[in-house]
Amino acid sequence: MISVHHLECSRSFRILWALEELGLDYDIHYYQRLPNYSAPETLKCIHPLGKAPILTDDEQVIAESAVILEYLQQRYDQKQQFKPKEPQDLQQYIYWMHYAEGSLMPLLVMTLVMNSVNKHVPWLIQPVAKKITEGVKANFVRPRMKDHISFLENYLAEHEYFAGDFSFADIQMSFPLEALQSRLQGKYPHIQAFLHRIQQRPAFQKARQKGIGSNERNCADI
Amino acid sequence: MISVHHLECSRSFRILWALEELGLDYDIHYYQRLPNYSAPETLKCIHPLGKAPILTDDEQVIAESAVILEYLQQRYDQKQQFKPKEPQDLQQYIYWMHYAEGSLMPLLVMTLVMNSVNKHVPWLIQPVAKKITEGVKANFVRPRMKDHISFLENYLAEHEYFAGDFSFADIQMSFPLEALQSRLQGKYPHIQAFLHRIQQRPAFQKARQKGIGSNERNCADI
Repeated sequence: MISVHHLECSRSFRILWALEELGLDYDIHYYQRLPNYSAPETLKCIHPLGKAPILTDDEQVIAESAVILEYLQQRYDQKQQFKPKEPQDLQQYIYWMHYAEGSLMPLLVMTLVMNSVNKHVPWLIQPVAKKITEGVKANFVRPRMKDHISFLENYLAEHEYFAGDFSFADIQMSFPLEALQSRLQGKYPHIQAFLHRIQQRPAFQKARQKGIGSNERNCADI
Repeated sequence: MISVHHLECSRSFRILWALEELGLDYDIHYYQRLPNYSAPETLKCIHPLGKAPILTDDEQVIAESAVILEYLQQRYDQKQQFKPKEPQDLQQYIYWMHYAEGSLMPLLVMTLVMNSVNKHVPWLIQPVAKKITEGVKANFVRPRMKDHISFLENYLAEHEYFAGDFSFADIQMSFPLEALQSRLQGKYPHIQAFLHRIQQRPAFQKARQKGIGSNERNCADI
């Protein structure tokens, strides 16, 4: 039996979506974030790093989004609908599977951590804290993010999906792109069109419904 | 012809090492970091993100360490010496290839950025800056890093290499582990033994020599 250890508002939504695309049966174990937005310690009972997503399939315990997607594709996508066959598309598939978490997400997490500093320091040092976190964003995060967004916009101007037809590379890329969505402000029509395209998929919508557990807060609050 | 666009003291050392393991001929184009440690803009002439490593092989331009390693293994490792054949080892190989940059490196980069803040703020606000960056390290980076280091130490206590025999997964994991080396302070003997093991390999040593261009500064300064 497949089980997903699903942390609210997290990378693990991707796994629910992939399972819906594959039409598989699975259980969801819901985990809520702590007040400081960390994952709860109970996740460490499943995998020592205590990070979501974690997938269990009978005896196997699998961590890391891209690795879970690769596992599900290899084991359950018997018609190879979700991984390209053409060598050039396959090369792109491998690239985006790594790029999503290896290059783009670290910048987004750094922004999140900097924003959280501003919220949590005593009010007396807030002006200085803001100056410092703004400095990190202005000098480190923003110039790199600008390059990444242009790179993605240019790529999606010429490609409907990331690796040929719709594939699990699109699922892998969806999480950082959705996290970017509010910053795009109508300026990057090809990224927005891609997001619109994937959000229309019935499996995406079904996963979204299942991802919202009864106690799940609005992810936009995080 | 294979060319490596090699930025001093960077992830691109891994590619030199892999090429040495494969016994291939290649050119190295050396790039020096700017005074703020960023990569120079000239790298953007090769790939729009302007990050090292970049490998070019005839017409192909390939970015992202793990993707380059996968490419080299698939194209040039005809005896499949550097990628495991057994399904269980292969599953581990895929895991560590993603984990290195997707989970471990972002924490190390965040530490580097926080340390750099302390060096670059005006002296008047240094005490407050230190408080803030220490807060990020204490609340965000350190507890996660502690989990990762224990996880790796426990894994290497039971495994000589990351995925069966020596493989490119070890090359991929070497960079974050070397970055951690100074923090281990003799407390994690299995990680240290692993590092010692890989650093003895003739291909590693040859790559280290080639990686040190005539103007390369000491990486420990960064």
